[in-house]
This record gives sequence, structure tokens and C-alpha cells, in this order.
Amino acid sequence: MRTILWENNTIKLIDQRKLPDTFEVLECKNVVELGEAIKTLAVRGAPALEAAGGYGVALAAFERDFTSVEEIKEYIKKGAEYLASTRPTAVNLFVGIERVLKEALKGERVEEVRELALKEAQRIADEDVERNRKMGKIGAELFEDGDSILTICNTGSLATVYWGTALGVIRSAVEEGKKIRVYACETRPLNQGSRLTTWELMQDGIDVTLITDSMAGIVMQKGMVNKVIAGADRIVRDAVFNKIGTYTLAVLAKHHGIPFYIAAPKTTFDWSKKADDVKIEERSREEIIYCNVKCGKTLMAPQDVKVYNPAFDPTPLELVSAIITEYGIIHPPYDRNVPEILKL
Amino acid sequence: MRTILWENNTIKLIDQRKLPDTFEVLECKNVVELGEAIKTLAVRGAPALEAAGGYGVALAAFERDFTSVEEIKEYIKKGAEYLASTRPTAVNLFVGIERVLKEALKGERVEEVRELALKEAQRIADEDVERNRKMGKIGAELFEDGDSILTICNTGSLATVYWGTALGVIRSAVEEGKKIRVYACETRPLNQGSRLTTWELMQDGIDVTLITDSMAGIVMQKGMVNKVIAGADRIVRDAVFNKIGTYTLAVLAKHHGIPFYIAAPKTTFDWSKKADDVKIEERSREEIIYCNVKCGKTLMAPQDVKVYNPAFDPTPLELVSAIITEYGIIHPPYDRNVPEILKL
Repeated sequence: MRTILWENNTIKLIDQRKLPDTFEVLECKNVVELGEAIKTLAVRGAPALEAAGGYGVALAAFERDFTSVEEIKEYIKKGAEYLASTRPTAVNLFVGIERVLKEALKGERVEEVRELALKEAQRIADEDVERNRKMGKIGAELFEDGDSILTICNTGSLATVYWGTALGVIRSAVEEGKKIRVYACETRPLNQGSRLTTWELMQDGIDVTLITDSMAGIVMQKGMVNKVIAGADRIVRDAVFNKIGTYTLAVLAKHHGIPFYIAAPKTTFDWSKKADDVKIEERSREEIIYCNVKCGKTLMAPQDVKVYNPAFDPTPLELVSAIITEYGIIHPPYDRNVPEILKL
Repeated sequence: MRTILWENNTIKLIDQRKLPDTFEVLECKNVVELGEAIKTLAVRGAPALEAAGGYGVALAAFERDFTSVEEIKEYIKKGAEYLASTRPTAVNLFVGIERVLKEALKGERVEEVRELALKEAQRIADEDVERNRKMGKIGAELFEDGDSILTICNTGSLATVYWGTALGVIRSAVEEGKKIRVYACETRPLNQGSRLTTWELMQDGIDVTLITDSMAGIVMQKGMVNKVIAGADRIVRDAVFNKIGTYTLAVLAKHHGIPFYIAAPKTTFDWSKKADDVKIEERSREEIIYCNVKCGKTLMAPQDVKVYNPAFDPTPLELVSAIITEYGIIHPPYDRNVPEILKL
């Protein structure tokens, strides 16, 4: 199923807090329930959050009766504001919210507001699936029968509405009949690799082996992987920002002469900026001193130890072999080819 | 206090399973209790295990009454055999056991066997402390006031009898009055970095910041560290075997032009062998699918996921800037300088 979908005026989500132990579908009947789901990472991943934001505005329009068009418009604006506050650094969440809100506010009757909102939210979700399928097909060219691919974090169906970005490319290559093995980095501190990526790939019957992030070096040294692929949170003129640890993989890939690919849709590019313009989000020390979100309160370090916990790192574009987008594979030089292919 | 010591015919250990939450001294009154402590990693680290093996044979000699010298010799041989079985890959454990057993068996009366055993066990422990102090003093030369040093695993007092190897060098530099900051990699999967290294350094008032292993890249890129130091489990003619993740740090250090040092005593060198002769121990999948030893049974990955869990990785010697030993700092070319300085 899709990671997020609309059914009977309800948003249904694969509850990612429960994976990999339990597959559970969470139903959100109002924006407060959805907001809690976003806050607690029941749903995460930039494209999935864009859809969640969009559906969330639609949900506000359906969650109660309204006596006038002014009333529904006021209500969905408040709902949008609340949703935007649930993850203040998730740009894609805002994009989804804004897109649906803008459409819905064009409505002249209560029913029309609802219809416009839902249609736009569905469009966001459908576009994501279509884009990922396209990106997957395009990127699959780079992978051959017998490849063994290292990846980080979760960039699959669970991070998107369906299919995925970097994992979508792997999925497409497998769909074409290529035999592919995957090594998944566990991706500390939140373990999206061990909790989500392995689960997704095993569901699809794709050969996956879990390693700690610190084993990326030895698997390259021993020739156990011959390609690396990762997603991206933001691509600026001189760097790719992605999950912490991506940069380490890129340096290792260069040292071993292994191609290092990024898969990301056009919406990820922020071509007017450079790496120095981007402030890296530092997350809470609890993520590191407690073993993991899933472990509750088991202390893994002295309670008062100093911690550095950046969520992302910048990988200079000179370490990236190619960027896979839904508009084609972009090779260096990026300063010429990115604007040309993406028409930026 | 020392990590392991002898008092009133009892072995006392800092219980490393309880750290960093609780500082607790475990008393072992017989070899079975000591064997359990070794198996469950209440004591770990090559030099500490050498002392544990040695003291263990002495413990067998003291743990009951004997009516003849033949009886005590038979008994300590059995104790030695049992202790050696508790961690079948820990070479240093066997060294300690063998050394004490050999001395003890020279005794001609029960009391003499006991005296010889205890004297040799104490000698092993004292030698370790003395050697670490020497290595620390010699290595401290390489570090300057204001340095910020990245390290992995635990190579401090808790891995040795006292003072430590790589961490001992840092300790010596601080003792000389140099202001040093340390970044400690958490060191998955068993988190010796987060549990033990941070605790030790905080006890000594040394400035330490905890990061995940995947953050080693960004701290070098941002200039937050300017040197790397690690210990070693075994040094062969072309590589250093150490905790998984060490190789990744060495590649990153090279990429950033940062010195990468190893601190290890002469006993670590196995100069007749090459990297290809060494079989890398693969440890249990449970270490990775469950969050951590301390977390008990919280599943972090699908129960039946494939796992690769090598305990060590080989770092080619060309990535090592210098090796600090108790006989001096060894610089490249190692094929000439190692045998010369260590008189191998």
C-alpha cells in the first residue's frame, strides 16, 4: 500500500514508529491526530511529509460541518497553521500545506472548498508516485545485473508516498530483472536503515544485508559493494545535504574508486544557494545518549555528556558521480548541466 | 582505581556492564565467577584480559585448600583451561593464563605454587601500567596545546589495567598541561565509545564530546578535529587490525590531510603475518538487530534480516602516520623501522 492515502474522509498512514516489529495502519480523523503522527515520526521523509501536509489541509475541510464558506476557509487556515508548526524545519511539509491551501481558498462554496482541497492533495500524492517511477526507470540504467549497492537512511516507499527515490531506483533495476544486492547502513542515531530500509526491501524480496555505519569502509575495501546510492534533502550549487553519514560514504567511495550516486527530484534543488548559506539542523542530545527512539530510556552514555548531533552533512558535488532526477541523469559539470536539464 | 586488582584473595573488577549509569566493583571469589565476568564483558580490552587471565590462575590456587602440590597443580590447570574457553578469540587472555600457569607449575609446595602464581599475576598487571605510562609519555610529544582529537572504541583505563593506550597518550598530554579536546565515536555496535570512553574522560575532567560513528566525516570537514588516535588489536606487516570503523576513520583522515596515529604496545605486533593471514572474527547478529547490549531485547531491525558483523577491520599501514609504542614513536617506512625499534 501507499505510505499515506485518503479513504472515507480519513488519512491512513503506515505507522513507522511500530516498524519493523508490527505493521500497523494509523487512521487520522482530524488535524490534531495527524499533527501528533508527524511530531512523533509515525510519518517522515520529505515527499511523504509533502503529501501529509496536503492531505492534512483537506482533512481540516472534512472534519466537521460548516455553515458558510468563510467559516471553512477560516478553519482550514488555522489547521494549516497548526500542521506547519509540528515540524518547523520540514520544508516539504509547508510546500504541501501551501499548495492545497491556495487551491482550496479559490472555492466559493463549502463543498467546492472541500473538492478543490482533496483534488490538489491527491494530485500531490499521485505526482510523487509518478515522479518516483520515472526517476527509478531513468536511474536503473546506471545499475547492472550483479551489482551490490550500499545505501544509507530510508529513501523508499516509506519516505515517499510510494516507490521511493534512491530505493526506488534500486526497485526499478530489480523490476527490470537485474539481480541486485543491497547493503543498508543502520543510519544512527535514528536507525532508519535498520528499522525501515531492511523491512521494505525484505517485503519486496530484495536481497539486503544490514551493517553498522562504521562498516561502510570494510565492505568497500573487501569489494562487497561496487556502487553507492543515497537520497538528498537539499541540493545547492556546491553540495548535497543529506542524512548525517552520507559525506563519509562519499569520501570512502572516492578512495575506493566506486561510483557515488544521488537520486532526488527537481524539488530538492535549491540552486540559488551554496553550502555556506545552509544552517545544519542540530537535533536533541537525547537521540544519542539514549540508545534509540525505540529503546525508550536506556541510557547509553553519561547523562551529562556533551553531544554533537547534526542531522545532515554536506557532500561537495565533486564527490558525486551523477545525480538521478525525473528529468534525466545529470553528470558533471553540474554548474552547466543542472540548470540545463532541470531548466532552472 | 585499577580496572582489575587483587585484594584479600579476591579479584576486584570495575563492572563495565553497569557503566556509565552505575560505578560498581565486582568481586570474583573463584574462577567460575571470573569466567562469567569475562563472558559477559564485565571486563574487556586486550591488556585488561591479560591481567584477568593471570589473576584468574592465581585465584584458582587460592580458592580452596589442597592436600598436595600435585592436587593444586591439577586444579589450577583445570581452572586455566576453563578460563581460556570463556573468550576463545582473546589472544591476550591466553597469554596471561599461560604466563602465570608456567610460573606456578615451578612450585614445589602448595604455598610456593600460590606465591609464584600471585607474584607473576601482579607482575603482568604492574607491567601493563608501567608500559602504558611510558607509551603515554612518548606519544604525548605528538600532541599540542589546543589539539582536538578524534578517537574510537575504549582504549583507556577500562581496556587496560590502568591509564590506557591511545587514551593513555591523551591523558599524558593533558597531564603535561596541554589543553586537549576529544571527540569520541560511539563505536557501534557495542558502544564502548559512548558508554566507557566518555565516562572515563569525564571522570578525569577531560573535555569530551560524543558523536555517532557516521559524524566522523563532518567533524573533519568542519575542522573540528585535527588529529585521530586509535588503539590496535593486532599489527601485522601491512595493516593494523582494530575495532570495526577504524579503517573508515583512517580513510577520512587521509582525505582531510589529518594525521592518523595508532598507540599499541610491542605485544600487539605480529610481524610475521600479513593482513591476508588474519581471519576477521564475525560476531553475533544479535549485537546489531537489538539496539545494544544494554538495551536488552528491543528489536531495531526485522528479526530475520541478514547481518554482516565483523568485529575488526584492517587499516593498511600506508594510512597510518605513526605508531606510538613504549619503545618509541615509529614512523614510516614501517618495514624497516618496526623491526629496528622493537628489536623484532
